[in-house]
Amino acid sequence: MFGFDINKRGTPQGEVKVPESLGIVVGIVFLIVAIIFQFFNFTEDSVWLVEYNAALASICFMILLGFVDDVLDVPWRVKLLLPSFATLPLLMAYAGHTTIVIPKPLVSYVGLEILDLGRIYKLYMALLAVFCTNSINIHAGLNGLEIGQTVVIAAAILIHNVMQIGASVDSEIRQAHAFSIYLTQPLMATSLAMLAFNWYPSAVFVGDTYTVFAGMTMAVVGILGHFSETLLIFFLPQVLNFLLSLPQLAGIVKCPRHRLPKFDPATGLLTGTKDGTLVNVYLRIFGRKSEKSLCIHLLVFQALACAFCFLLRHFLAGWYK
Amino acid sequence: MFGFDINKRGTPQGEVKVPESLGIVVGIVFLIVAIIFQFFNFTEDSVWLVEYNAALASICFMILLGFVDDVLDVPWRVKLLLPSFATLPLLMAYAGHTTIVIPKPLVSYVGLEILDLGRIYKLYMALLAVFCTNSINIHAGLNGLEIGQTVVIAAAILIHNVMQIGASVDSEIRQAHAFSIYLTQPLMATSLAMLAFNWYPSAVFVGDTYTVFAGMTMAVVGILGHFSETLLIFFLPQVLNFLLSLPQLAGIVKCPRHRLPKFDPATGLLTGTKDGTLVNVYLRIFGRKSEKSLCIHLLVFQALACAFCFLLRHFLAGWYK
Repeated sequence: MFGFDINKRGTPQGEVKVPESLGIVVGIVFLIVAIIFQFFNFTEDSVWLVEYNAALASICFMILLGFVDDVLDVPWRVKLLLPSFATLPLLMAYAGHTTIVIPKPLVSYVGLEILDLGRIYKLYMALLAVFCTNSINIHAGLNGLEIGQTVVIAAAILIHNVMQIGASVDSEIRQAHAFSIYLTQPLMATSLAMLAFNWYPSAVFVGDTYTVFAGMTMAVVGILGHFSETLLIFFLPQVLNFLLSLPQLAGIVKCPRHRLPKFDPATGLLTGTKDGTLVNVYLRIFGRKSEKSLCIHLLVFQALACAFCFLLRHFLAGWYK
Repeated sequence: MFGFDINKRGTPQGEVKVPESLGIVVGIVFLIVAIIFQFFNFTEDSVWLVEYNAALASICFMILLGFVDDVLDVPWRVKLLLPSFATLPLLMAYAGHTTIVIPKPLVSYVGLEILDLGRIYKLYMALLAVFCTNSINIHAGLNGLEIGQTVVIAAAILIHNVMQIGASVDSEIRQAHAFSIYLTQPLMATSLAMLAFNWYPSAVFVGDTYTVFAGMTMAVVGILGHFSETLLIFFLPQVLNFLLSLPQLAGIVKCPRHRLPKFDPATGLLTGTKDGTLVNVYLRIFGRKSEKSLCIHLLVFQALACAFCFLLRHFLAGWYK
């Protein structure tokens, strides 16, 4: 399986066949590593084993559906719902708490400090998985952007986990963050390896297999590590991209098959189109850029969002929760 | 994705494009059903949840690898080893006993009644998974044979489970067989649905995706249900086929890409070739047959093997174990 690089159309590089869906390799290596990890990280009577295996089943199911999508080109409205199937093992096996802590400024209005959402919490989990998976998938289209954003967010998750383990004395919280590290670390490692080949100019494409796999893994660690709010702030550029895409996704504005910027073969620069994606809006605001420089800009923006999240947590700690 | 029906080459039916790899549909439906089943079958604190989720992860991983194989045509020597990767979640999460009961006539020679194999038991589990998966995969090539044999064996497994639940008073054994039913029942249901389309003349092919998925599921229930010896007798035709194939698999005799019987477009009958498969040997012994009649004969043989297994268990009970 192969594809052509649309952002290089009109240059000799645009004629090169690029292998597609290499995300399957990343996914399979990740699974094997993550499976073997549990031998070292858990004892046989650990209560975390159910959730770890459910997480593996969810991620594996997501990789399977992503690869099917790559091979068979599933219609995109169906595609949006695939993560909700993949998240089923997690929802079914999830036996953790279903409570949320009401932010302190709101306690007097709600009248409760802790609210048990019950099954609605599981719905929230499913929606989070659908969002993370699809938001990575639609913030794409530049060489290295899919993997780059994953690497940046995964690094932020790892830093957050280590900080929380250091700061917390509650063993349950420490275990939850350790659990997150066990899954994020192989994601980081396999992604970095693939980034070497996917960076501009891409020798391989990763396909939907990779984006849905990465999104699902991060959603899973966010859910089971109980830091989904923090995760959503790490996902700030993806949230922005999703909001910008809403008019086209909802069908109010016409949505073409690809919503890539316009490539000028003479100068090698990209120009933003009217399509509502962060890539295009960024180009419209900050002017024309080469593909590589645009990708670096967007990754720096991603890193700034993560830094903003850490600052926010620092200043709100104590006041907010 | 599509293929041509080799056993109808030279007739108008041989020119029809037949959709390939429909096993992916069976596999995904099976996973969704099996995942939702655990909501009804287990309480949240059940000790079986870890193994159930590990089983789901293994089966899902196997479907993924099978589908990758269908799409990318993995070399068959690599293919043989794929199940050993897929069985990893199961091996890692398996916390059950690793002992085998020594058959009574051998107790005096071994000097033990129960032998703890430790890690060797896990190796046995992995080898069983590799065998079941590949043996279903190579006993194939006729319309309906792949699914037909699965349906026959799955029926035998279900009968065996129900009989054991009825006969046993030990709650652990009853739970193990109930566990097997939870996974075999959806396998049976999804396979029967697909058989309607895969029966002669096939409107769809199931591909390696299906054969490895079915083999893995049966291996998993055999392992976790603790009736792997019984399972191997259900697999008698597959064992025979494997033994007949050994010279070619080992490379002693030249092995062509397909080892199908020779089709005569004029009479519509199949003639056995010299390739060492049960299909060919059966044709050589019992004469030329149409594809449909040959498939029925082989399925009846499979059913006889299962009946033989029940008889054997009946007569050996008490004396052997």
